[in-house]
Amino acid sequence: MNLVDQMLEGNVKALTRLITLIENQSSEIIKIMPKIYKKGGQALVVGITGPPGAGKSTLVDQLTTLIRREEKKKVAVLAIDPSSPFSGGAVLGDRIRMQSHAKDSDVFIRSLGARGSYGGLSRATKEIVRLFDVFGFDIILVETVGVGQSELGIMEVADTTVVVLVPESGDTVQTLKAGLLEIANIFIVNKSDRPNASQMKHQLMEMVGLEHLEKEKWLIPVLQTQAIKGTGIEELWAKILEYAAFLKKNHAVLEHKKRQERRGEFLEILTLTYQKEFLRRAQKETKLKLLLEDVENGAKDPYTAASQAVRKI
Amino acid sequence: MNLVDQMLEGNVKALTRLITLIENQSSEIIKIMPKIYKKGGQALVVGITGPPGAGKSTLVDQLTTLIRREEKKKVAVLAIDPSSPFSGGAVLGDRIRMQSHAKDSDVFIRSLGARGSYGGLSRATKEIVRLFDVFGFDIILVETVGVGQSELGIMEVADTTVVVLVPESGDTVQTLKAGLLEIANIFIVNKSDRPNASQMKHQLMEMVGLEHLEKEKWLIPVLQTQAIKGTGIEELWAKILEYAAFLKKNHAVLEHKKRQERRGEFLEILTLTYQKEFLRRAQKETKLKLLLEDVENGAKDPYTAASQAVRKI
Repeated sequence: MNLVDQMLEGNVKALTRLITLIENQSSEIIKIMPKIYKKGGQALVVGITGPPGAGKSTLVDQLTTLIRREEKKKVAVLAIDPSSPFSGGAVLGDRIRMQSHAKDSDVFIRSLGARGSYGGLSRATKEIVRLFDVFGFDIILVETVGVGQSELGIMEVADTTVVVLVPESGDTVQTLKAGLLEIANIFIVNKSDRPNASQMKHQLMEMVGLEHLEKEKWLIPVLQTQAIKGTGIEELWAKILEYAAFLKKNHAVLEHKKRQERRGEFLEILTLTYQKEFLRRAQKETKLKLLLEDVENGAKDPYTAASQAVRKI
Repeated sequence: MNLVDQMLEGNVKALTRLITLIENQSSEIIKIMPKIYKKGGQALVVGITGPPGAGKSTLVDQLTTLIRREEKKKVAVLAIDPSSPFSGGAVLGDRIRMQSHAKDSDVFIRSLGARGSYGGLSRATKEIVRLFDVFGFDIILVETVGVGQSELGIMEVADTTVVVLVPESGDTVQTLKAGLLEIANIFIVNKSDRPNASQMKHQLMEMVGLEHLEKEKWLIPVLQTQAIKGTGIEELWAKILEYAAFLKKNHAVLEHKKRQERRGEFLEILTLTYQKEFLRRAQKETKLKLLLEDVENGAKDPYTAASQAVRKI
């Protein structure tokens, strides 16, 4: 029986091996993913993002505990570190994260470090989330450091995105304003026992209010949590479910979102496929090999070279 | 006379118009850039990156003041906000930044917000830096928010990269460790009047020391600054020049860096060129149009569609 069938039957080792193939950008992936593309779609995918040190891991941990206790649903966690593109290592070892759920076989936790080319991480995230989905996880929590450009590609995968901030995030909010509003469905002010927590909350509410006047659809809620004590986690989970219900009811919004996602994912895969094809042929075909050499030593400008390459392939 | 010639003759309006073309990802760019590709290469390009609120803008402002006062060199500043991919707006208005250098015609300041597709910002940065270079700016300061994946693509353009942190950046340093070491040629602990500044400095020095054992080339210096008062700026500028001299002496390191940069830039342009070509033809050719529609409505998986598209184009 092949890996995909084993995975679909609930074999965790097969799941793990498939994830490794994705991480390594194996050429097998392009054969495997189409087989599972039509399956799944049942899982609720929740993205958790925010600056380093905002307490995302603790929040994810507490959410997992709550979901397991209250709903007995299967939970998968994917923790992504887009900031170490060359290290290949993930922020926190899986082992540290696993501890509190080590004995629960219905919780699966995986870290993913960035390696390979840009855009690779966003694609790998989508692929691993799809695996989790078809494997049968009900809730998939995707955690990523940062609120920058690369995270937006990653967060396309989420049905609901929670942006986690802390009372000291004033500068971040000022700086990232539009980016935050674009990405957030729910705002969290974590570590809300610290000074200025309610000030931060009001700053966010004001920002959300201005946005809301224009969009008048989902009023992004601003919640306060203290993840380390478990405070506010139930309210967060309720809001996550509420947003999922909102999306289901507003079918046009959901469908638009899905189409955008699919188009974005396709263009990512398209360019990666093309780039691979180019590099493969550049190893064999003298003309392309010379073209690449001319580019690398600066003899040919990249624009002219790119036009020539696109015409040749 | 065309725009490029006007720009090469020192016409600032022509420079500004060319930058706008780049920002808008105009199709003119592919014709313009090859013309200037071989020119330039004289400017020193310094990247300044770090988390939001670290004081990068102030640091850049102070550096500019110092360079203008001490060396009378022409300075261009490009401030990038990769975190607002959909807003198109840059973090801080050019007008605010311009104030202290408003009367100095040898200082040019421009902000760049992210728009369009991923990867576009990194390419636009390289193109604008190249314009600044051939226009005749001696020093080009590229400032970007964040230290994530997208910033790495942006920072490929810099000869020297300064990573700015603050005494409270402990978590950031822990989290981004490998990513920081990969990107930094110089570390700054800014706002060093705050508590824990020297602790932060020692944490960084320890990290650098471990790295250095393996690489034994350039020992990444860790400097303390208080940008708002101008403290430590001269030391920073001296280190920037020292690193530039180091690179010049170590020709193999420089050449390797340049080849990697050129290859990276080419692959970016190649995939963008291909994507544009695909989208252009998908508007005209029925087969590709249907392919894209099938992808968007979920009837066809993106992997199969990408393989088919690459075979067709």
